[in-house]
Amino acid sequence: MSIPPIKGVLSPVVTPFDSNLRPDIDRFVRHCRWLEANGVGLAVFGTNSEANSLSVEERMMLLGALIDSGIDSARMMPGTGCCSLTDSVQLSRHAVKLGCGGVLMLPPFYYKQVSDEGLYRYFSEVVERVGDTRLRIYLYHIPPVSQIPISTALIERLLKKYPQTVAGIKDSSGDWNNTKAVLEAFASAGFGVFAGSETFLLANMRAGGAGCISATANVNPGPIHRLYATWERDDSDAQQANLNAVRAAFHNFPMIPGLKQTIAHWSKDRTWSKVRPPLVELTDAQKAKLLGDLDALGFDMPGLVR
Amino acid sequence: MSIPPIKGVLSPVVTPFDSNLRPDIDRFVRHCRWLEANGVGLAVFGTNSEANSLSVEERMMLLGALIDSGIDSARMMPGTGCCSLTDSVQLSRHAVKLGCGGVLMLPPFYYKQVSDEGLYRYFSEVVERVGDTRLRIYLYHIPPVSQIPISTALIERLLKKYPQTVAGIKDSSGDWNNTKAVLEAFASAGFGVFAGSETFLLANMRAGGAGCISATANVNPGPIHRLYATWERDDSDAQQANLNAVRAAFHNFPMIPGLKQTIAHWSKDRTWSKVRPPLVELTDAQKAKLLGDLDALGFDMPGLVR
Repeated sequence: MSIPPIKGVLSPVVTPFDSNLRPDIDRFVRHCRWLEANGVGLAVFGTNSEANSLSVEERMMLLGALIDSGIDSARMMPGTGCCSLTDSVQLSRHAVKLGCGGVLMLPPFYYKQVSDEGLYRYFSEVVERVGDTRLRIYLYHIPPVSQIPISTALIERLLKKYPQTVAGIKDSSGDWNNTKAVLEAFASAGFGVFAGSETFLLANMRAGGAGCISATANVNPGPIHRLYATWERDDSDAQQANLNAVRAAFHNFPMIPGLKQTIAHWSKDRTWSKVRPPLVELTDAQKAKLLGDLDALGFDMPGLVR
Repeated sequence: MSIPPIKGVLSPVVTPFDSNLRPDIDRFVRHCRWLEANGVGLAVFGTNSEANSLSVEERMMLLGALIDSGIDSARMMPGTGCCSLTDSVQLSRHAVKLGCGGVLMLPPFYYKQVSDEGLYRYFSEVVERVGDTRLRIYLYHIPPVSQIPISTALIERLLKKYPQTVAGIKDSSGDWNNTKAVLEAFASAGFGVFAGSETFLLANMRAGGAGCISATANVNPGPIHRLYATWERDDSDAQQANLNAVRAAFHNFPMIPGLKQTIAHWSKDRTWSKVRPPLVELTDAQKAKLLGDLDALGFDMPGLVR
């Protein structure tokens, strides 16, 4: 089965909630359309999507609504990795059935210090149980949050058994040496390596990577996509520096509330600032500082509508 | 609404799986009956139950089957804390509806370094959404696994708002100083403090605690319950030493596979050794060592039937 590999810039789409903390379909679809119009693919249900604060049913409902809206599923990479094998299978099967170009799969993250053998069994069981040649798994390496690293030895073993299905990785370790090692080991064989932040986008493209999946692609999608599309041009280092400046403005605050506050401000829609517990919204002081810093950079979200 | 507080020894019941890794209702109910016959309450769906490797539906199905089997729900304390608020609400509501004496609630554990404010909002939302005066929450403090501690400041704030509902805590920090601080702050007001291991059972009872909820109560329930029931007798230190020796035999191996292997051996039922990935069964060498160590201690599981 020929499934084109996913490439480019993807956004781990933030999930809007209504006043009762229910996922808000209309705002979600609207934001996804805006991201798509800015050249960015949709890694819905990632860390920045508060995906693990959603139930399995809520995720399936949102993905169904997104696809019903007519957005191309080929550039969708929903997060489907859960602590429970049966949940991961259910979500992955659903995503494949709806035509998603890939799924981004967290390792099971409750038990700590698990073995590579256990993780290998986990991912293998998911592949076998989904049982669909269209399945494309992008492994999700984010040890600062999941606490469960995806080692190169594990990738190698999975690739050997499932060379078509295991399609790539998102490296959110924040450690370029790790990304480099994965690129050197696997990229030449077509394994898609995504940096977990646009700060590594240019370096990743120069080293044979596939793009990036970055939180701030929720608010700065156009310029990040532009660097991806033009990374071989002379101005790419300057573009990278501009992206880094915007990214840095967000690093002073909790990322998810910061992204949502930014969208709320530029869309003049306060509801966007809502997060599910255990997260909390930015304080007024944090909000003022973030928006001030972004203003000073000439930051904008052109075309964003309420 | 008068709900008697849960006291004594509870077992975080290991969850049996069949050859296809489906939860095995018959073995589950049989093991729970044996635990009940040994004086031990049922903290089903704890860490040692591989609860986070189960879907919400699988947990509800198992709890329903258990209650249908006629076992008293008053001494059941199912784990209902998930990363997702909506999942925790669904499980907690279900447990209350089925008459469970309490629920053991993990904090949401995907996001790290979350604030007490965020955790307070999380637990508050669960209480408000369940909206049932019969709900009794036992907070689950297990920072080595969840990475999200339950601070005394958080307990204090929750108790102030929900004095009837917030009924106690299981302290699996392994840090007696923490248990002691919680006991000193809250036990006199009727807050039930459970040690997370029987190694602290005697100390906990002497300091005004409610009992323990311990992994090894799955295999050694009678003697652990006996210490709880007779802790004021002269032989309690000797009893504690015997319990510690059995417990220590398990500390050389991954706990959950070790418990299941022990049950498999004494019930002559190999299926009991199955674990869901990312866990793996003990190796043959580990199994031989564990069973040999237990034999040397004269360990037995009297009355266990296949």
